[in-house]
Amino acid sequence: RIDGARLTSRLADLARIGATPEGGCRRLALTDEDRQGRDWLVGQLETLGLDTRIDAIGNIVGILKGQLDGPAVIMGSHIDTVGTGGRFDGALGVVAGVEVLAALRDAGLTPKRDMAVIAFTNEEGARFHPDMLGSYVWAGGMSVEAAHREVDSEGVGLGSELKRIGYEGAERPGFLPAHAYLEMHIEQGPVLENEGGGLGAVTGIQAITWLELTLKGRPSHAGTTPMAYRKDPGLAAARINIFANELTKTIPHQLANSGVIRVQPGNVNVVPETVVMTLDLRNPQDAPLAQAEEAVRRFCAELSERDGIAITFRDLARFPATPFAEELIAEVERSAGEFGLPIRRMISGAGHDAQMMARLCPTAMVFIPSIGGLSHNPAEFSTDEDMVAGANVLLATAWRVANA
Amino acid sequence: RIDGARLTSRLADLARIGATPEGGCRRLALTDEDRQGRDWLVGQLETLGLDTRIDAIGNIVGILKGQLDGPAVIMGSHIDTVGTGGRFDGALGVVAGVEVLAALRDAGLTPKRDMAVIAFTNEEGARFHPDMLGSYVWAGGMSVEAAHREVDSEGVGLGSELKRIGYEGAERPGFLPAHAYLEMHIEQGPVLENEGGGLGAVTGIQAITWLELTLKGRPSHAGTTPMAYRKDPGLAAARINIFANELTKTIPHQLANSGVIRVQPGNVNVVPETVVMTLDLRNPQDAPLAQAEEAVRRFCAELSERDGIAITFRDLARFPATPFAEELIAEVERSAGEFGLPIRRMISGAGHDAQMMARLCPTAMVFIPSIGGLSHNPAEFSTDEDMVAGANVLLATAWRVANA
Ligand SMILES: NC(=O)NCCC(=O)O
Ligand SMILES: NC(=O)NCCC(=O)O
Repeated sequence: RIDGARLTSRLADLARIGATPEGGCRRLALTDEDRQGRDWLVGQLETLGLDTRIDAIGNIVGILKGQLDGPAVIMGSHIDTVGTGGRFDGALGVVAGVEVLAALRDAGLTPKRDMAVIAFTNEEGARFHPDMLGSYVWAGGMSVEAAHREVDSEGVGLGSELKRIGYEGAERPGFLPAHAYLEMHIEQGPVLENEGGGLGAVTGIQAITWLELTLKGRPSHAGTTPMAYRKDPGLAAARINIFANELTKTIPHQLANSGVIRVQPGNVNVVPETVVMTLDLRNPQDAPLAQAEEAVRRFCAELSERDGIAITFRDLARFPATPFAEELIAEVERSAGEFGLPIRRMISGAGHDAQMMARLCPTAMVFIPSIGGLSHNPAEFSTDEDMVAGANVLLATAWRVANA
Repeated sequence: RIDGARLTSRLADLARIGATPEGGCRRLALTDEDRQGRDWLVGQLETLGLDTRIDAIGNIVGILKGQLDGPAVIMGSHIDTVGTGGRFDGALGVVAGVEVLAALRDAGLTPKRDMAVIAFTNEEGARFHPDMLGSYVWAGGMSVEAAHREVDSEGVGLGSELKRIGYEGAERPGFLPAHAYLEMHIEQGPVLENEGGGLGAVTGIQAITWLELTLKGRPSHAGTTPMAYRKDPGLAAARINIFANELTKTIPHQLANSGVIRVQPGNVNVVPETVVMTLDLRNPQDAPLAQAEEAVRRFCAELSERDGIAITFRDLARFPATPFAEELIAEVERSAGEFGLPIRRMISGAGHDAQMMARLCPTAMVFIPSIGGLSHNPAEFSTDEDMVAGANVLLATAWRVANA
């Protein structure tokens, strides 16, 4: 069993780094706050006597040697946050993994297989694209070089930031072969709470498409230019945002969000010249997601034709629906059963590092309820009881899989 | 008569300061580029032997002493630009005023009344609000202290920028009493060109209302939050933008623009927390403009109620429709007639320093055509011929009024 007090106290320690006045966390990937969080984590891993390694994309790995050589049972998540982040998203999965290894150490237990915890770089995609970048590179979906070339919205490079904070490590991403991957995470949505609580055995992750649209119109004077002469990309962006939102009413289970809207030159009396906007489109299934994207592209083509706005598209992320391994989902359920904890199967609305790791090995996740379904919000909250329950399920599952 | 070559060469000199690759100008108020433009202008005024003064809001005044004491005939405009500015907007009016005084000097003529040229601070409102700030302070509409407290979108103060660039002068704004105010400007719209060219005798300036709206929703996760649970201020901003644009189809002569849209936290996968947007609403008449604003406020109240978005309003500028002085408009027409130049009466869609000066004294403007009606755009263009024609009308009118 894990030590609940130690788990929550580690989480509180990490939450102090990048703490915001609203009670949340702002620890954007590869910023100074992220560096402080990493330094803290490395300190924890080393104190536990784990073999601690950093790879070329900044993923932090702590390994507990098992009795055999061969692939490891890996637990993990991330410690970066979005701009309006909470204290639990990602951080909980990492400290739970640390706690599992600490509990095994305390009990003097050595698993058959290696066991490891990983904190993956830039999972949120808040600063660099795509989201799940560290685990994507780990799983071989993207090269280290391509990842280093990613830039944030200010044009600052991922590679240079990694060097600046001292986390460009010597290991090759993926250097530790994976026997299985397990991730504990807050649900970040309202499903479990609405079902009266209990844990979630995650069956997979929905498909995610992130598009960046650049809309070019014609800057002009807002006091002298007749309405009919304007080519206003801001108005076009407004129509696209509303169209994407309307789509969610006709395509089942479709989600849409426009989280970034940047308007140039951004003067009160200038009809905008350029708008850069993003669309985050998700669906549990690939086909309706493709249908939604197609509808957006068709709408944009028509609007472009009609209003004289040039629209170009860029993919920021594109991940298919990812089912998890049935045998591992069943192991998660079994562990919950052993502790007498209610658990229900559910799909994940959020992307997770598990979605990338599922390319490499059998993968599963355990969710705990998020109060009010809130996440990416300073008010994000989960109870100590649920955290301890989730970590115990993680421990039991990882231990069994590591010794099978 | 003015010296056309000297006029266009001065304009070209000024256009080099803050020149953009697209052929336009970016000389935002109180930036280093504005300082360079000011230094150049002060150099011109001093070379002409004019009595050159700077006031506490940075307005630059060059005075040609007349034979009498008493109020002056003032010509003027501004040298700041918007972010995507052209080479003519404002700059032309200032160099035309300089050229008028230079031509009188050359001819050895001393007017009865003082004559002066003023370059007013921050006319565009692109960096600090309101637009026409320098002339507004000059005319007593706003105190120097309040103007100094204005901040740009980065929170940098107008007062501190004025000090930084060395243009907080010793004079009290309005120190030079005005007998009349005359401003030459590009039309910035398509009216004159559509009428086959010729000059414009401006009868007045339409009413302008600039509103800043702050929309607060609830940040949440774009992958896990059901659409119905979201409180998305970005979507609300889109609806307001479209509503304001639709209004222009039902309220005669109504214009609307949303030139600023800033989204926080601005992450792809976060349903936005806050949007700050602006509306530039204009109408030749005050009553329909008030009706448009009222409709926007009602729409926002309903949307706020329905979608759970908190919306607050702030005035950035609010200037009533401003008719010019009939006798001075007639003088402008008479001058054009003397040169055999076609001229037609028209209202100005853009705000100008003349709108503020009209609070103090009889005021009029002369417009020259803008090719393609373009302004606040690097492609802004007017012909040398029209510039010379406009400057001659300015000279003739100012001279007559100064000696009447
Ligand atoms: N868990 C989480 O918030 N991940 C960010 C990736 C996503 O946008 O779903
Ligand atoms: N002339 C000009 O572009 N002035 C800026 C003020 C306005 O927005 O009309």
